[in-house]
Amino acid sequence: MKKLMNAADTMLAESLDGFAAAHADIVTLAADRKFIRRRTLTPGKVALISGGGSGHEPLHSGFVGRGMLDAACPGQVFTSPTPDQIVEAIEAVDTGAGSLLIVKNYEGDVMNFEMAAEIAGDHRMATVVIDDDVAVPNSTWSTGRRGVAGTLVVEKILGAAAEQSMGLAELQQLGRAMNARTRSMGVALSPCTVPAAGKPTFQLGDDEMEVGVGIHGEPGRKRTRLEAADAIAEEMIGSIVADLAPSEGRECLLLVNGFGATPSMELYLMVNAARRILQARGLVVARYLTGSLVTSLDMAGCSLTVSILDADTMRLWDAPVKTAALCW
Amino acid sequence: MKKLMNAADTMLAESLDGFAAAHADIVTLAADRKFIRRRTLTPGKVALISGGGSGHEPLHSGFVGRGMLDAACPGQVFTSPTPDQIVEAIEAVDTGAGSLLIVKNYEGDVMNFEMAAEIAGDHRMATVVIDDDVAVPNSTWSTGRRGVAGTLVVEKILGAAAEQSMGLAELQQLGRAMNARTRSMGVALSPCTVPAAGKPTFQLGDDEMEVGVGIHGEPGRKRTRLEAADAIAEEMIGSIVADLAPSEGRECLLLVNGFGATPSMELYLMVNAARRILQARGLVVARYLTGSLVTSLDMAGCSLTVSILDADTMRLWDAPVKTAALCW
Repeated sequence: MKKLMNAADTMLAESLDGFAAAHADIVTLAADRKFIRRRTLTPGKVALISGGGSGHEPLHSGFVGRGMLDAACPGQVFTSPTPDQIVEAIEAVDTGAGSLLIVKNYEGDVMNFEMAAEIAGDHRMATVVIDDDVAVPNSTWSTGRRGVAGTLVVEKILGAAAEQSMGLAELQQLGRAMNARTRSMGVALSPCTVPAAGKPTFQLGDDEMEVGVGIHGEPGRKRTRLEAADAIAEEMIGSIVADLAPSEGRECLLLVNGFGATPSMELYLMVNAARRILQARGLVVARYLTGSLVTSLDMAGCSLTVSILDADTMRLWDAPVKTAALCW
Repeated sequence: MKKLMNAADTMLAESLDGFAAAHADIVTLAADRKFIRRRTLTPGKVALISGGGSGHEPLHSGFVGRGMLDAACPGQVFTSPTPDQIVEAIEAVDTGAGSLLIVKNYEGDVMNFEMAAEIAGDHRMATVVIDDDVAVPNSTWSTGRRGVAGTLVVEKILGAAAEQSMGLAELQQLGRAMNARTRSMGVALSPCTVPAAGKPTFQLGDDEMEVGVGIHGEPGRKRTRLEAADAIAEEMIGSIVADLAPSEGRECLLLVNGFGATPSMELYLMVNAARRILQARGLVVARYLTGSLVTSLDMAGCSLTVSILDADTMRLWDAPVKTAALCW
């Protein structure tokens, strides 16, 4: 294992301290590093709270700030945050309008957010579960589809809507609708290594890729020889579009997401491949987002996400955002 | 070689097309992909033009936009842009106030920018050469120090100053002063692979790191066993601060830069290590920037850059910027 680190058991804490210091104008880190929250809350706004295992940075802490999340609870690497982290985040950022919990569909996350909601039962709360990964119907830690890079799309759109005073029930409805219009699929060119484990989560031959990989390195649909980028994009976009079944001429957002060890040059090459394929299938790519935003430690590879946008959700996507990782 | 690509000889072109499509609100790609320029120019403003070999993305194309560069000329991977690329960029973005050429100190870059300046001799021009890397006095492709991640600091500060109507001669003076106050050093945990070569640029043992590596994988000061992050940061900051020799209590910017395959968690851990070391040496870290911004394809590792800021340069650093890779 080759990582910039001091010790596996202090790695997350040291990284969170660095993050909080570097972005002190936007966020603060709570006591015992239980959550990252906005430095300044907006009274009367519904609070958006997310979280999950660490190792996917900048998701979710990098999306805390104006126009997006109010708090993010970082679990240990690839491990759900504990209910008490989530309860403390709710208590810290709910200013009276209630809290919307945005949860990726993994058993541990769903269970711990549910337990937190029970414990914090005197707060008004609603939950949106994200399950945008079309690769497999069930996976190692999920009953049903996994929640992956599409999570950030839902967080951005809900963040803008909350900023514009949308209420809790409407936000939940919008979140579920956006999740239904958002589909993703990934491919790994290398495994990732969890610091505490010290060895790769899976093995991949020098000429192999894992098609449909999960963001913890969970198995996908198949392992094949590494193909050309166009063929990889064709398979991913084909699966996504078949599932979304959008009508001809619909406008969409294309998110090309790196898994942590993928150079910018390759990500933009995938943008170019995916946009041509989407256009050939009658979709209009109206918005783009490219970057290593929902990562898997040091895994190489990428995921593609397509979100169908209408005039309202396009406006929400375009609304200002100011977080450590997204800004416009 | 494992990359998301179709063919080595089309990789850069496909990536540039994807970049231009994804950021069409900010940039346009010139004919024959000779340069990336701002979509909208500001008449009467000095034009800032940079460029260099590709493979360091988002440097420089990702820094084209309001508050930073007017044009960037992408050479082939790790290869200088040709004089005619640079001449065409000058002719496209000089609106009458002249052009400042920002050049990293590599022999090919310096020579080709000089040739371009001769050919475009009817334009007013000045040049700033960046040589911020303290690791080695000379290197494979440079006489004198290499220009590395500090380049983006100079580009940001000059970009803000140009936006505020600073003239060509003053910009050159400010650029040289910022270069003198900016120092960097890097460490590689893995080599990088140039697509056309198909194999790593150098070999590194499973337990080794290259201390003082260049952004093309050039040799550094020494090859040693991988050390703890704190020890790595101590050596890099020690070399940087010894060279800058700042007076006690000076304010600085800390840039922690990933080389392309380095996860966010590790970069923020290095932020935490470096800021404590800088504080212990009596410097005040007043600004932070963290990300994979001056990369070396798929190399793992990072560089640290420290820039001494005064009240004026702090204001210029804080001034708004809107590019594909930097936004605030």
